Formats: sequence, C-alpha cells, structure tokens
Amino acid sequence: MTVTAPKGFRAAGIAAGLKSGGAPDLAVVVNDGPDATAAGVFTANRVKAAPVLWSQQVLRGGVVRAVVLNSGGANACTGPAGFQDTHATAEHTAAALSNRNARLLLGAGEVAVCSTGLIGERLPMDKLLPGIRLAVRGLSRDGGPAAAEAIMTTDTRPKSTVVGGAGWTVGGMAKGAGMLAPAMATMLCVLTTDAVAGPDALDEALRAACRLTFDRVDSDGCMSTNDTVLLLASGASGIEPDQAELTAAVTAACHDLAQQLVADAEGATKRIAIDVVGAVDADDAVLVGRSVARNNLVKTALFGNDPNWGRILAAVGTTTAAFEPDRLDVAVNGVWVCRSGAAAEDRSKVDLSGRDVTIRIDLHAGSETATVWTNDLSHGYVHENSAYSS
Amino acid sequence: MTVTAPKGFRAAGIAAGLKSGGAPDLAVVVNDGPDATAAGVFTANRVKAAPVLWSQQVLRGGVVRAVVLNSGGANACTGPAGFQDTHATAEHTAAALSNRNARLLLGAGEVAVCSTGLIGERLPMDKLLPGIRLAVRGLSRDGGPAAAEAIMTTDTRPKSTVVGGAGWTVGGMAKGAGMLAPAMATMLCVLTTDAVAGPDALDEALRAACRLTFDRVDSDGCMSTNDTVLLLASGASGIEPDQAELTAAVTAACHDLAQQLVADAEGATKRIAIDVVGAVDADDAVLVGRSVARNNLVKTALFGNDPNWGRILAAVGTTTAAFEPDRLDVAVNGVWVCRSGAAAEDRSKVDLSGRDVTIRIDLHAGSETATVWTNDLSHGYVHENSAYSS
Repeated sequence: MTVTAPKGFRAAGIAAGLKSGGAPDLAVVVNDGPDATAAGVFTANRVKAAPVLWSQQVLRGGVVRAVVLNSGGANACTGPAGFQDTHATAEHTAAALSNRNARLLLGAGEVAVCSTGLIGERLPMDKLLPGIRLAVRGLSRDGGPAAAEAIMTTDTRPKSTVVGGAGWTVGGMAKGAGMLAPAMATMLCVLTTDAVAGPDALDEALRAACRLTFDRVDSDGCMSTNDTVLLLASGASGIEPDQAELTAAVTAACHDLAQQLVADAEGATKRIAIDVVGAVDADDAVLVGRSVARNNLVKTALFGNDPNWGRILAAVGTTTAAFEPDRLDVAVNGVWVCRSGAAAEDRSKVDLSGRDVTIRIDLHAGSETATVWTNDLSHGYVHENSAYSS
Repeated sequence: MTVTAPKGFRAAGIAAGLKSGGAPDLAVVVNDGPDATAAGVFTANRVKAAPVLWSQQVLRGGVVRAVVLNSGGANACTGPAGFQDTHATAEHTAAALSNRNARLLLGAGEVAVCSTGLIGERLPMDKLLPGIRLAVRGLSRDGGPAAAEAIMTTDTRPKSTVVGGAGWTVGGMAKGAGMLAPAMATMLCVLTTDAVAGPDALDEALRAACRLTFDRVDSDGCMSTNDTVLLLASGASGIEPDQAELTAAVTAACHDLAQQLVADAEGATKRIAIDVVGAVDADDAVLVGRSVARNNLVKTALFGNDPNWGRILAAVGTTTAAFEPDRLDVAVNGVWVCRSGAAAEDRSKVDLSGRDVTIRIDLHAGSETATVWTNDLSHGYVHENSAYSS
C-alpha cells in the first residue's frame, strides 16, 4: 500500500502523456491530516532542478499538504521558465485539491513538487496540468501502488515499503535506478506516517535514516540534480512515538527502499554490499566503502565474476582513511583472498555465481564499521545510458 | 626510436615468458652516460607496488644507470616476498650489466624497476631472471622500439615520442590503456635525454610536465598501484639547456605520450577533450574537468553519440569550484547547447560522428583555463575489464 498504508493519506497515479509510451507518469500524494508536518532531504548537487529549489522553499514552512511527482522530465537546467513551470504545477495542484475537497483549502506553498527524467528540457505543461486534475479526481485511500508506478523511469519495478510501529505506521515509495550516488541521486522518495510528530522530530528521523541508508548507496558515483526524500506526517493514529522509535521505523523504511533501488540499478547483474570494518570512525569506513563502490575496475571485474581483490586494494589506497597498506584484509563472499595486503586464500574458492556479493574490508585501524551498497558495471548499464535521451 | 633517440642510451625488449602468449614482456633501458642523473614521479596511491617502493628509494640517490621493466605482472600487493623479488630483479640486472660491460660497474641501487600487469600475484622469477640476461645481451642503440613494445599490456599499439632541442633530444616510451587517473594510473613511462641536467633540473621539468599532461588524463577515475614516470639524462650531447627549454621539451614529450594513451584507452571509441574556461584558478578548472571526465553517465552518453549536456551540468554541480549554476555555458563540438544553465542551441546540431569530441565549459567565474582528457565508456571497456584476470 506504499504511501497510503498509514492513515490520513490518499494517492493517485495516472498517465498524463509526459512519457511517449503512454505509461503512468504523474502521481499525487495528499495528507488529509489532522497534522501536515513534514521534513525533506535534497540533493547536494549545486546544480539543482527547479522542483528541488521549490520544494526546499516549501519545506522551510514546515507544512506539506500534498506532493505532486512526475516522471518523463526532470525540469532541471531549465532556467527561470522552468522554475515558473514548477510554481504553476504547485498552484494548479493546490487549486484542484481545494476545489474537490472542502476539508483542504491549501496554497501552492504547501505543495511539494518532484520531477524525474531527462535534464534540460521544459515540461509539456499542456499535458501536465490536465494530468494533475485527472490525478486529483482519482485520489483514493488505496492509490499508493498506482503512485509508486507512476514515478518510475528506467526502474523495472515499483519500490514500496510499509513498516509497522506500535499503533502507527510508516509507508513509502521510491524510484531510482541509476545516478545513485554520494548522498543519493536521481532518487525520489516519499515517506508517510500517521504518527504524531513535529517537524523537528521528523527532520531528525529522516536525516539519521538517510545517512545510514540512501547516503550509503552508490550505484555509479553520479549525483542527480533532482534527488528528493520527503517524510510527511498526518498524526491520524493519534500516537506520538518517542524519537528513537520514530527514527528506527523511518530508517527501516529507507533501508528497505534503498535495497530495492540497488537491486534494480540500471543494467546490474550483481547486488554488492561492501562491509568495511576495523575503521577509526564511521566516516573513514564510508569513505573506503564508497571508493570501492565507485571503482569501475572493481565493478567490471565483479560483472565478470572475477574476485579481483587487487583492484579492491587499489581503490582503498586512493582514500585518506587511516590504515596501513600491509595490514589490509579483504574477503569476497567469505573467502579471505587477501591478508596483510597480499594474496591469502585461493581466489578460485570464491563463488560469484549468485546475484549477491559481499566484500569485507578490514582496515585494522579501529573498531568502527559501515556498509556501502552498489552494483556491478555491466553491458546493460552502458546500453541503457548510451541510449537514454536519444 | 623512443628512448634510444637521445645519445647515450641503449635498450632492448624481449619475451621472457611472463605473458602466456609469448609476446615481448621485458625491457631494459641503459644509460651509458657520461651522466646518470634522473628524476621520477610515482603513483599517489597509498597501496604501492613493490617496484614503486623500490624505485622511489633508488631515485632518492639521484643516480639511475638502468631501468628494467616487465609486463605480465604488477608485483603489487605481494608483501615482503614481492619486494624481495624486485630487489633480486635490480641486483640481477646490475650484475648482468656489469659482466657485459666494463664501462658499467653498477649496483642494484642504481637500477629502477617498473612492473605492470595483474595485481596480487608473485612474478615468475625463474622466467624473469633469465629474461634479464637475454635482454642485456640484446641491448642496442636502436632497441627503443622493441622496449616500447615489451611494456604493453592491453595497449593495442606501442607509444613513443621524440622531441628535438637545440643539439639535444628527449625520447620516451609509455604504456597504459586503462586505469589512467588522477595523477595517472597504470602507466609506465621512461623518458630519456642527452641534455646535461642535474637531478633538480630534471625533477622540476618532470613535475611541471606531468602536472600539465599525465595528471590531466583521466580515463576511468581509477588510480593504479604501479604508475611510474622516469626521466634519465646521459649528458652525451654536452649541451646544458636552460630550465625553461628543458621543461618545455619534457612537457611536449609527455603531452604527445598522454595523447597516445587517451587515444588507445581500453575499449574507447571517443577521444574527449574537456576545456574548462572562465575558472577562478587552474585548480578549479582541473577539478571541474576531472569531475566531468569521470562521470559514467557523461561517458556513456558520448559513447551513444548523445550530446547530453544536462549530465555535464550535473557533474559540474558536484564540485566545489567557484561558479553560479545559472551562469554555466556548455558547448559540445562547438555548439553551445547550454547557456546560462539552460538549453540554448539545438542539440541536434552537434556532430558526434567523429572520434574526437571537445566539451567546452565556461564557468564565468574568472579567467583561468585547463584541459582534461578522457574517453568514453563503451561496451569494449566493460568487456576488457570484466575478462582481464580470468
């Protein structure tokens, strides 16, 4: 049920004609309250799409009553006119919702906007605005799955999650299959909860969750202009969890979605977990994990079922993390192919026939750990990304 | 004539049996003097191969009378035993040269060693040592081309250069086709000159040259454990150029070799120059150029002949360089597809049918410029690197 699993939310997903093939491409999520608190985390890319600039502004108000999301166009690098398109999208959504629903009298400043698709092209507003009216008419308590489907781009399947609390629930949907990178990338995610929570509590929960999940997914090292993760609370359960409970549930929801993103990364044949242990601190562990996750030579080797630990060591060696090169240990799928920086167990013992790969790197410098998730670099990745816009 | 173009040098390239196919895999370059001054630049990777650790030590002495280079094995991540192998290689080369040549009575500490190939495996010393004797017997004044061929790995052709000074010459050979990265990567390069130059003059010339050439080649963002660039001077011309002349000639030689490396990068179908202009300083310009050069989405788009400037902007946006996102201009092969951060000239005007691509990025933040060279990310790259060690 994705975003409509918690009480107080309706959603819809429809085809507005933004995608050439006629697939669903527009989603609306509405928070019917009683509360409308929210938090958001956005791309760290300095080139930000118009909807990111807009939604950051909306979030500053701390109230989000609706989110409108489109695939079929990122509305990034579109200049002042593109920002005006986002503004019109929010206004139109607010007006359509206010017309349909006496309960909801909302302004554009309470509507977040998310877009995904090709960068640099204006959105076809003549299709988008009628699509918004169609979606608003279709809003329903079980519209979550349709919304999750409408935000897909090169995803092969929708991603959704539901995490139960004690009398309250977190639901969520996400899209994203490439450009997953440091602090995320073209990833859109809307999380909903019927817990009672103020903006500060939501912000704390969402930032903690992203840090441990989406921020540790690095599919291809690229960072999008459009990444957005939103968390909306309706308070409809009447239950106010403590901060630890809230953070744990939001983290579990983000973890579940992040794993689905990695599993569905463009052209991937492997889902790779890089466990870094023995680090001085978590930052070092993430740094090392990310360096390995981004290394094209490691990623192509794994695509070829080759436990090429030398390339892993070379990637570790490019970081500033605390370690001694001659103390590094590396295991691939449980076989310690490298000990003390040199060959150890026979690499032919490594079984890479399955889809899941675990690389374990022991820095022998401390006791902190982190896991970074990535995927392999395959012919499919090259194919999808060399053909995407043409 | 590569490294034997300048007076005072002999070289040889032979098959020692390190490569399974019987191709040449061992080269020796000898400086017959009268001088034996030298400078070296090595990988910045903290995981350094045994020959790098050894040669750094040799260079500290400032005297290099011979270089022995092998393909067919990197001798990286091989522990203390691997370092011992490098030491034995240098000793054996010194002994073989001293036996053959009364003029040359040299110690292992005057022999630099370079290795390239698979990481993590010991070298077959039973083949390498006899190979050294064979190569020393074959040393000749026209052995440069054979040496350049013997150091190839996945290179499809040898790389060599000759740059003429006023009565003196710089010659050089290089290998490297993948793992070209920040401050180079599995790249071996030996430059020779018959100019009269002390170690400090050579060091200054070589560092300046690398900074503008090899350091600005970024093929796949990966950094090798083995990169080595050596510059040897025999003084046999009897002419001592001034520092500017020396630096200019060495830079020209490195530029020529760097261009050959980019053109022969693994699986590449495009040779891409990223010209960054309007930067506050050269560091910013290089930072931006490198970020674009490493971006897999930009590289796959160019493989697909797609002038996807949005991905270029997204790559620029990940840097800390001084610029305003809404002032960025981007041209692809002369067509300004992006002005002020948004679409400008029609992308269909961009002709990407040729092998050479020039991306020009104007940051509008200052007056400094830099060019970074890279290549596209193709099916060939994935193929070569997924099959390399197996």
